[in-house]
Amino acid sequence: MDQTGAPMATKSRANARTRRIKRPDYAKKIGQPPGVLVHLGEIKTEHPAITLFEFDDSGLHEQRFASVLESRDYTPQHRVLWLNVYGLQEPEVMSEIGRRFGLHPLTLEDILNTHQRPKLDDYGNYLYAVARAWRANPETGEVISDQVSIVLGESFVLTFQEQPGGLFDPIRERLRKNVGAARERGPDYLAYSLLDAVVDRYFNCLDSLAGSVERVEDAMNQPRMSRLIGDINRLKHDTRELRRTVWPLREVVAGLQRADERFVRRSTDIYLRDVHDHIVQVVESLDSLRDATGDLLDLHLSLESQRLNVEVRALTVVSMLFMPATLISGIFGMNFHSIPWLERADGFWLAIGMMLFIASVMGLIFWRRQWLQST
Amino acid sequence: MDQTGAPMATKSRANARTRRIKRPDYAKKIGQPPGVLVHLGEIKTEHPAITLFEFDDSGLHEQRFASVLESRDYTPQHRVLWLNVYGLQEPEVMSEIGRRFGLHPLTLEDILNTHQRPKLDDYGNYLYAVARAWRANPETGEVISDQVSIVLGESFVLTFQEQPGGLFDPIRERLRKNVGAARERGPDYLAYSLLDAVVDRYFNCLDSLAGSVERVEDAMNQPRMSRLIGDINRLKHDTRELRRTVWPLREVVAGLQRADERFVRRSTDIYLRDVHDHIVQVVESLDSLRDATGDLLDLHLSLESQRLNVEVRALTVVSMLFMPATLISGIFGMNFHSIPWLERADGFWLAIGMMLFIASVMGLIFWRRQWLQST
Amino acid sequence: MDQTGAPMATKSRANARTRRIKRPDYAKKIGQPPGVLVHLGEIKTEHPAITLFEFDDSGLHEQRFASVLESRDYTPQHRVLWLNVYGLQEPEVMSEIGRRFGLHPLTLEDILNTHQRPKLDDYGNYLYAVARAWRANPETGEVISDQVSIVLGESFVLTFQEQPGGLFDPIRERLRKNVGAARERGPDYLAYSLLDAVVDRYFNCLDSLAGSVERVEDAMNQPRMSRLIGDINRLKHDTRELRRTVWPLREVVAGLQRADERFVRRSTDIYLRDVHDHIVQVVESLDSLRDATGDLLDLHLSLESQRLNVEVRALTVVSMLFMPATLISGIFGMNFHSIPWLERADGFWLAIGMMLFIASVMGLIFWRRQWLQST
Amino acid sequence: MDQTGAPMATKSRANARTRRIKRPDYAKKIGQPPGVLVHLGEIKTEHPAITLFEFDDSGLHEQRFASVLESRDYTPQHRVLWLNVYGLQEPEVMSEIGRRFGLHPLTLEDILNTHQRPKLDDYGNYLYAVARAWRANPETGEVISDQVSIVLGESFVLTFQEQPGGLFDPIRERLRKNVGAARERGPDYLAYSLLDAVVDRYFNCLDSLAGSVERVEDAMNQPRMSRLIGDINRLKHDTRELRRTVWPLREVVAGLQRADERFVRRSTDIYLRDVHDHIVQVVESLDSLRDATGDLLDLHLSLESQRLNVEVRALTVVSMLFMPATLISGIFGMNFHSIPWLERADGFWLAIGMMLFIASVMGLIFWRRQWLQST
Amino acid sequence: MDQTGAPMATKSRANARTRRIKRPDYAKKIGQPPGVLVHLGEIKTEHPAITLFEFDDSGLHEQRFASVLESRDYTPQHRVLWLNVYGLQEPEVMSEIGRRFGLHPLTLEDILNTHQRPKLDDYGNYLYAVARAWRANPETGEVISDQVSIVLGESFVLTFQEQPGGLFDPIRERLRKNVGAARERGPDYLAYSLLDAVVDRYFNCLDSLAGSVERVEDAMNQPRMSRLIGDINRLKHDTRELRRTVWPLREVVAGLQRADERFVRRSTDIYLRDVHDHIVQVVESLDSLRDATGDLLDLHLSLESQRLNVEVRALTVVSMLFMPATLISGIFGMNFHSIPWLERADGFWLAIGMMLFIASVMGLIFWRRQWLQST
Repeated sequence: MDQTGAPMATKSRANARTRRIKRPDYAKKIGQPPGVLVHLGEIKTEHPAITLFEFDDSGLHEQRFASVLESRDYTPQHRVLWLNVYGLQEPEVMSEIGRRFGLHPLTLEDILNTHQRPKLDDYGNYLYAVARAWRANPETGEVISDQVSIVLGESFVLTFQEQPGGLFDPIRERLRKNVGAARERGPDYLAYSLLDAVVDRYFNCLDSLAGSVERVEDAMNQPRMSRLIGDINRLKHDTRELRRTVWPLREVVAGLQRADERFVRRSTDIYLRDVHDHIVQVVESLDSLRDATGDLLDLHLSLESQRLNVEVRALTVVSMLFMPATLISGIFGMNFHSIPWLERADGFWLAIGMMLFIASVMGLIFWRRQWLQST
Repeated sequence: MDQTGAPMATKSRANARTRRIKRPDYAKKIGQPPGVLVHLGEIKTEHPAITLFEFDDSGLHEQRFASVLESRDYTPQHRVLWLNVYGLQEPEVMSEIGRRFGLHPLTLEDILNTHQRPKLDDYGNYLYAVARAWRANPETGEVISDQVSIVLGESFVLTFQEQPGGLFDPIRERLRKNVGAARERGPDYLAYSLLDAVVDRYFNCLDSLAGSVERVEDAMNQPRMSRLIGDINRLKHDTRELRRTVWPLREVVAGLQRADERFVRRSTDIYLRDVHDHIVQVVESLDSLRDATGDLLDLHLSLESQRLNVEVRALTVVSMLFMPATLISGIFGMNFHSIPWLERADGFWLAIGMMLFIASVMGLIFWRRQWLQST
Repeated sequence: MDQTGAPMATKSRANARTRRIKRPDYAKKIGQPPGVLVHLGEIKTEHPAITLFEFDDSGLHEQRFASVLESRDYTPQHRVLWLNVYGLQEPEVMSEIGRRFGLHPLTLEDILNTHQRPKLDDYGNYLYAVARAWRANPETGEVISDQVSIVLGESFVLTFQEQPGGLFDPIRERLRKNVGAARERGPDYLAYSLLDAVVDRYFNCLDSLAGSVERVEDAMNQPRMSRLIGDINRLKHDTRELRRTVWPLREVVAGLQRADERFVRRSTDIYLRDVHDHIVQVVESLDSLRDATGDLLDLHLSLESQRLNVEVRALTVVSMLFMPATLISGIFGMNFHSIPWLERADGFWLAIGMMLFIASVMGLIFWRRQWLQST
Repeated sequence: MDQTGAPMATKSRANARTRRIKRPDYAKKIGQPPGVLVHLGEIKTEHPAITLFEFDDSGLHEQRFASVLESRDYTPQHRVLWLNVYGLQEPEVMSEIGRRFGLHPLTLEDILNTHQRPKLDDYGNYLYAVARAWRANPETGEVISDQVSIVLGESFVLTFQEQPGGLFDPIRERLRKNVGAARERGPDYLAYSLLDAVVDRYFNCLDSLAGSVERVEDAMNQPRMSRLIGDINRLKHDTRELRRTVWPLREVVAGLQRADERFVRRSTDIYLRDVHDHIVQVVESLDSLRDATGDLLDLHLSLESQRLNVEVRALTVVSMLFMPATLISGIFGMNFHSIPWLERADGFWLAIGMMLFIASVMGLIFWRRQWLQST
Repeated sequence: MDQTGAPMATKSRANARTRRIKRPDYAKKIGQPPGVLVHLGEIKTEHPAITLFEFDDSGLHEQRFASVLESRDYTPQHRVLWLNVYGLQEPEVMSEIGRRFGLHPLTLEDILNTHQRPKLDDYGNYLYAVARAWRANPETGEVISDQVSIVLGESFVLTFQEQPGGLFDPIRERLRKNVGAARERGPDYLAYSLLDAVVDRYFNCLDSLAGSVERVEDAMNQPRMSRLIGDINRLKHDTRELRRTVWPLREVVAGLQRADERFVRRSTDIYLRDVHDHIVQVVESLDSLRDATGDLLDLHLSLESQRLNVEVRALTVVSMLFMPATLISGIFGMNFHSIPWLERADGFWLAIGMMLFIASVMGLIFWRRQWLQST
């Protein structure tokens, strides 16, 4: 994950400016009537790409369209059709697909607004599911989430992603090789596989987060890492935000389990239950990480504060060693006519000896009370 | 949002006196029987203004009444009637409208009491909904809320606002231009549009709040901003109060979805579900902001406390550099008859050198322990 | 509320002894079989007072009984009868009323035990509701609660209060003047009016609490108010306790809405819904106050701690200004035979100048670092 | 409660060793098949004692058995039979009773395992209820809980206690005197009375806890009570643990209300509702105490920390008063040939006056800033 | 538990490296289609071991298979079959068993993935339950959890454990000895016994955790144990994680109670209810431990901080004792021509006496204010 070996704190500071709370550009949308298509969110890929998979027991047909016009004349030949779109910034692509598959304007609006919360909407002739896929930045350990929209009809599945990321590549591969008779199952099993792929990625990112927690734990033993607070707060924030994108996914899966037999056959339920278990497992791992991070923060703050206090005590103790010596020097510096020892030849050394003796006794006492340890 | 460029802290202090917890003037109302109309709340507009929109497929009629008397003789000619009232301080306006549309005294009382919590009441012959619209003060970033009352009958919609704010202007414009066949739909779709307009404003204010959080985040890196605590507490308070005005709105929308077919046709449900999703999104954003603000406060307090402690340690360390030198000067100031070096010509410089040497050695040790860094 | 102008802290201290956690005298009751009448709680009024209101469309009869014996021979002449009792310490009054109206021993026991939680019990031939009325002490801002018991039968309403407080005076006045045809409605509307009067008082006390919060907020800006912690804790405690007496009242009202048609006619439901909304509003205001108080406490503690730390730093800084001067005086006090400047006529002034110069440079540095500001 | 007058802290320390978290001896039980009777818990009474009450309208028979053998030949003559057992360590007693009344092995196991959570189990031919009775140690204010098992059959009630404590004595007395026709009611009313007696004791212990909170509150005003933290923590712990033993009792009572008519006649429901209300009241009082204790702890910690900081500031301030004087003495101790005032007869007194003057001015400044107050 | 006597802190440090947050190797699994068998988790035993128990009223047959091949030809002769497998790393063993008993691929996948959350899945022809068994490391007090899978069919029970640990040995022994007619009951009673054995172990580990809490409590009274924070945090973490493995087990048992009569006969319900009660008891004990640990942490931090502050105050106080003496020595070291006492023979001793007198008075004041106590 972190192969460059550069210290973590440096990196996270370098990213400080880009790690701000992202402000979605809601303003674009305000005042528009519902159903007007405006893309809300960053543009993450340059040209939208459309790929088509068509399959049933008899075979598989795979095609890539350069533009939405090209796809207009295409006639499907197999039982199950899967259309995937990367890049959402061209409203005309969306409206063409919407017209073709009979999507409601609100569905298209939701697909384009990439700040959706995971949910499942039943539009009568199709189901519309939104999920969020995670990506861990291997450089910084930062985890960000993209929106994945899945439209499940009786004979088709449409998927919309913000950018290509290889998320669904294993599924494509399995379809090509017909692993586990993948082609024989219907669109509901395909939709399940897509959700499963999204959830699988979560485990990957959990790994990355756990790695960050470990790095912070290691750094804690080093003397003085005031920047750790920022790193821990970042982890807390990431864990919390990720939890928010996973938690409602449970309801999406539960909704699919309750969905009409037309869209989800009961034989697929057993697989959906499996995804549901995985989601709960992810949420519990996130809770574990969150608790661990909270404990780390408390531990760090109290260790740091204690360390500082112990140092201040050590300094105070050392300064006390000088006090009796200074007083003695002052006493023998007084201008009285008769002061003992002043006339003696070894008087000076007796005074110095007295200073050293008192300082040693005090040092010994402090040493035994363990007050001189500064760290 | 904040174009004047004046520093934030100054502004927020200037507003300190006006930012108090607002005490509603409940006393006016106590002891009155239910249904007596007394306006509770600030008077935010001078003269109540009444505007009328009437429309169906055949056309649109728009009129503005100077007084409630003027409107008395008006006979509606279209299927859907929308009456909007700004300013609630004149009870006679309210009672005239109440009489005309058959409103229950408790409804009128609720409209006038501008401290209502969002809710939906079914009065049999009409539905009464209360929502709170937000306004962000562009000068201070402060967000305040006004009450919006919506009465939905079988053929009319009445809206009551505390003051004009352009909240419903886009809807008026769409009706005038008949965008998306807006005129062909019934009062339920109009009520949905009004709620949608209210919720759209929320995103605007979220933007403003997120901006304030960013400004606080930036200010955190500057050396010593003890006033930040006040700013952060204000943000926490605002976020919490806003959440309280949005959360019950979910139930209002859910209530409309469950409402009688007479008032809300089932074809409008799909739009209400959309508003519902937006409300949940607003609540989650507020939760995110609240958590971020809480983290900022903790971070600020611990940074500030650590900074102060580190400074105190640095001062202690510096004061220790003087101790051996002072002791040496005391030793050579003693009045013993025979003290080494005292007779030597370079004795003074030897003593000074000894002082400098010890101070340097100590300084070096402290430097390497990083105890001299004060910030 | 606080017209005397005396400082708040003084007052709250004067009340410290009386503000203890009140220990109900449970011991009196232990070991008694259920239904034995023992008055639990302080005796707040000397002589129980019994007042009777009887009314229907035809008129109103009002009577005051000196003792329970006097009332024994009374025969009601109107449809609705309302008996109000102040002072609960005489069990014989209670048992006579219980016998007359057929009250269950457990009801009488609950009326006498003034530490009840708000609740609604259905005893078959009547409903028994307990609520808590608040009173704000205008001297101290303290809010305390009294128990109000309401028994609602098919043709009568009985109310029991710990002491007279004018709580139901507006209702009596409305009955006397027959405002809003008050006499034409049944006992259920009367019971609603009584509950509404109780809830109206809550707003009054919320006002008083909000005033206390404001006073604390103002006091926060004054230099050193260590007693504020106690005041804030008192507010926290009051808000919490009041919330406990309001929260279950929601269930009482909901219970009345679900109650048998014999006791509560459906036409009264709309009014009960209104009371329910008010209760929710009170709870939300209390939550707001509680959060505000919590924030105030955190703010106060961190400000106080920071102020103290800044002062300690300022003192440390000032003490450092003396160090170089003291060292210089020590150096020129050494007894070496040859020390530069010692022979010069202006040597002394050179040394003093050196001391002032170094102190000034240090002072300037500290000044620019803002380390000398002590508050 | 605390009549000896010895200071509280001393007592609570004396009990420190016994107040440990109690570790139930689960190990005894592990690996045993279900239904094997092993007594789990401390042995709190030496010899099990068995007492029998038999009664109906016609009369009452009371008997005490020395051993279980003696009871074997006993034939009941009345309608309701109540058998009470103190001391659970002899499994043969239990198995004999189990055989006689047809108890399931799991019931016997639960009776013997004195770490049960309150619950109600329906075994078809009887109901088995577990509750926890509290006892306040009058010496230390400590509250501990014993297990009370109640078996309710159609014509019998069996009760099992860990030790005699007079818990059920008032009920016995009422049966003997037939107060309130106690003998005429069935076993369900007896079971209610037993539960009511358990709950009545709770109020007694609440009293004792509230007394401890008051003592801590008083001690807070005394200068330096670092041991208070331990006392407050003990109170927090006790309140929490007691709440755990009361909360599930609500379900026990609710279960009895839902129970079969064979065991609980509907006429007893009204009494069970009363017990239910009392339990809710106990839980709320515990919540109040818990909140009060939490506030006390926060208050204590912040007061203690502030006090210490104020003292350190006062010491720093006093040490600053010596600095200018020491510098002046150093200046006039320098060995320059010409130093002003040195030759003057009153030079010494001028210097001393200067020292006093500067110290006085500084002292005045510090005094007015209120920096010299140490507590 | 801790028989070696070595101090606890040392041990826990020795284990620091191994106590990291465990990162499950999710990566192995990503991209695989569902149902592909990959073992996820550590390999805890070298060779899988398969043991068979077959029994009914007529007798018991027990056999141990060296490999899965050996078991292929085995024909069962009794009514109930129990197959137990230790070690999960060989997928071929699993697939052979799966084929033989008709297990779904997802079941096998769940058995092999040892990071499952406890759950109960109904696969139509069998029930699949996952639980987590705890093991306390007697050396370190550390508690870890292993996955136990139980497959309950109509006539068989399959159990899968990660490693042999004697968990089910008491059940084997009871079957061999036919204690309590264990052989006469069906597979549901066997499944209950297995779950009961798992839950029994929990009590064992609770014991170990409570012991650790006690050791920490003891260590708290020793002067300076900064490492306690780490130990307490470990306890908090362990308690939290264990709670996560027990909580969902309630649903497993509830699921068994609701399960089809084919798998669980109603006569077993009473035993399952008993297990359910035990689980709730474990959860409550964990909650108690968690609260106790949290209190310990707060107590430790505040004691440690207070101790440090008291020490700093003591040091400050001692340093103040030297100040007047140093000033006096400076005063009599000034070079004025006429200074009182300088000429007197006992002047020196008068000055020394003055120093001692002032220091004694100050020391007495500080002593009475209890400022000199350093711990």
